[in-house]
Amino acid sequence: MIRTDAQRLWGSLMDLATIGATPKGGVRRLALTEADRQGRDLFVRWAREAGLAVRWDAVGNIFARREGTQAVPPVMMGSHLDSQPSGGKFDGAYGVMAGLEVLRTLNERRIATRAPLEVASWTNEEGSRFAPGMAGSGVFTGVHRVEEIHESKDPEGVTFGEALKAIGYAGAGRPHPVGAYFEAHIEQGPVLEDTRTTIGVVQGALGQRWFDIVVTGQDAHAGPTPMELRKDALIGASRLVLEVNRIAREYPDYARATVGFMQVRPNSRNVVPGEVRTTVDMRNASDKTLLLMRQDLEKSADAIAAECRVAIEVREIVHFPPCEFAPALVDAVRRAAKSLGLSHRDIVSGAGHDAVYLARVAPTAMVFVPCEGGISHNEIENARPEDLAAGCDVLLQAVLESAGI
Amino acid sequence: MIRTDAQRLWGSLMDLATIGATPKGGVRRLALTEADRQGRDLFVRWAREAGLAVRWDAVGNIFARREGTQAVPPVMMGSHLDSQPSGGKFDGAYGVMAGLEVLRTLNERRIATRAPLEVASWTNEEGSRFAPGMAGSGVFTGVHRVEEIHESKDPEGVTFGEALKAIGYAGAGRPHPVGAYFEAHIEQGPVLEDTRTTIGVVQGALGQRWFDIVVTGQDAHAGPTPMELRKDALIGASRLVLEVNRIAREYPDYARATVGFMQVRPNSRNVVPGEVRTTVDMRNASDKTLLLMRQDLEKSADAIAAECRVAIEVREIVHFPPCEFAPALVDAVRRAAKSLGLSHRDIVSGAGHDAVYLARVAPTAMVFVPCEGGISHNEIENARPEDLAAGCDVLLQAVLESAGI
Repeated sequence: MIRTDAQRLWGSLMDLATIGATPKGGVRRLALTEADRQGRDLFVRWAREAGLAVRWDAVGNIFARREGTQAVPPVMMGSHLDSQPSGGKFDGAYGVMAGLEVLRTLNERRIATRAPLEVASWTNEEGSRFAPGMAGSGVFTGVHRVEEIHESKDPEGVTFGEALKAIGYAGAGRPHPVGAYFEAHIEQGPVLEDTRTTIGVVQGALGQRWFDIVVTGQDAHAGPTPMELRKDALIGASRLVLEVNRIAREYPDYARATVGFMQVRPNSRNVVPGEVRTTVDMRNASDKTLLLMRQDLEKSADAIAAECRVAIEVREIVHFPPCEFAPALVDAVRRAAKSLGLSHRDIVSGAGHDAVYLARVAPTAMVFVPCEGGISHNEIENARPEDLAAGCDVLLQAVLESAGI
Repeated sequence: MIRTDAQRLWGSLMDLATIGATPKGGVRRLALTEADRQGRDLFVRWAREAGLAVRWDAVGNIFARREGTQAVPPVMMGSHLDSQPSGGKFDGAYGVMAGLEVLRTLNERRIATRAPLEVASWTNEEGSRFAPGMAGSGVFTGVHRVEEIHESKDPEGVTFGEALKAIGYAGAGRPHPVGAYFEAHIEQGPVLEDTRTTIGVVQGALGQRWFDIVVTGQDAHAGPTPMELRKDALIGASRLVLEVNRIAREYPDYARATVGFMQVRPNSRNVVPGEVRTTVDMRNASDKTLLLMRQDLEKSADAIAAECRVAIEVREIVHFPPCEFAPALVDAVRRAAKSLGLSHRDIVSGAGHDAVYLARVAPTAMVFVPCEGGISHNEIENARPEDLAAGCDVLLQAVLESAGI
């Protein structure tokens, strides 16, 4: 059974990580900045050195192609090279470098595949500089129009289109059919590490519902205002936080619910809070259960409002239905892990990935590998060379099965 | 029974409120600003027109004096003319104008008192521009040294001493003995309005303990991180908010406890909060009970920390013991209300006032009148002319009883 070159993969990841390197060992490679350009240039150079045909489309998605023996849609691997403002060396970069490593390995072994193979580097997955995120894959899969993405502005007022031109990656061409899509990625969660598992066989991605919430009470002086005459918005908000936590624990199928943001007004130590703005992020593998969670949230908010004598406004701002990956490809990933003798377990992605959009237009699967402490979107994000190599080997096997030899 | 002039009192308050007037009907007269100078100038002019001897001390406290028939320490009335950044027309101003109105009434009626009478306007009660608040009365009563107050800087780096000189109110002289101190004030709470009572006979002021609290968990992605592997600082903080509320309701003697401030980190809707900084403000009429409340808070914090797998640091930063006003003067206020046929009830001040410091050096009492909705430190702060007049009448009677005629 052939293997990829663990050292070459690690070396490529480390070389790439010198671009936009941060003091604590992370990277800052915001989409369409000079650092992003340098990262792209390096990937393009390596791809060309590997004999791949490289092109980019109207939103800067880069495709590096190795022809197959038949004229069928390519089997594609990929992820993204942009990072969070204080991002890590592996989030995104791993999926692109793993794809490149698969092709380098096939070249070395002179293995031809039936279907062509492509490595895609999707533009602006993170959405940290330009909203929305997953922009490149979103355009490729018809979720967004090119013009809409081009018009998006960064905080300095620079448009996506201007920034793309400035770094020399404004290409052309319409989306092409994809035979299958595989994305390797660090888990960005603690489950694999916690269960000492090397390979996550990703079943799909959780559905998401996001809410903006405003709790309105009445400002009052903390000293002269008796407890029974208060309308304390923070008490209402605190009860809501605990209800959100209860909801996450009551519903099956990977339910998650998080209050990550809170803004208290006037936010003074001796004033009873008159208003709290907060958010809820709910996720579930079942869209039906996700709706039940939403209904539970709304009911809980009403009950708290009545008991705490405050008003609670709950507004849904995002709904992503759950994404189920292609069973045949998921099986291929599982089989690959098994045949390589790697510990593996089924897992569901809690986060969004380019693969979630690709799944709309092609059979799709993902391979997860552990990351240290489950931490990512952080400079201290870390992963072990042997785990990254194992994930790359799984990717190679699954791609070979899919593309045919 | 003689009365003060309700219209004249209201007129003075409204004239004073034109200085630093804000669009919504409030005032912005931060300590030692040009607006404060104008307010002081107007008070000084009115005091001199009323034949009073005016002087100011080293921190700008103004004393307007009407001699008595005997050389004994004066009976003093007063409060402050500075305001919150978005303050109201009555907080502080009422106590000074009511004192002036008492002296104007006695002049009109040609009533001589045995003890001299003084109206004091204390510098920087609010502490909004220079910390600490209650600075003028604090120096007068030996809580603070003059130098320490002079060195305090505003956010622009201007010292109290420079600002005081600039507005022409840097005087001299040591604190003088005070025979009795009365302060009329709006309640700044909802109790009188809620119980349809005109006069609050203030027994004293609640003791206070202030805490800074840091809850430390671990940042994590809201999507990929299962509930059971989280260390959510906001869940710990929310439970603490509810415990603080429980504590306030479990302890007798006007217990109040408030979480007014909260800062969540990183404060992003799809990140499990890793840190929450918050505060607790606890008040009680009994210092012993206040200590029990503190112990309950610390025990609750420990229990929450263990259950939520977070660390909770509780640090006390302020302890004011409760203040008990002089029973004879409190009785005088109650008798005055009764003899004037005004509804009245015993009440405890939840907020700090200059009177709390004056109580350290002289028999002291306060007279509260209702304010609309219990709201103050707000431009919409409001009070009814008839209530303000009633409070002023009570002040007159209590002062006459105290000073002797």
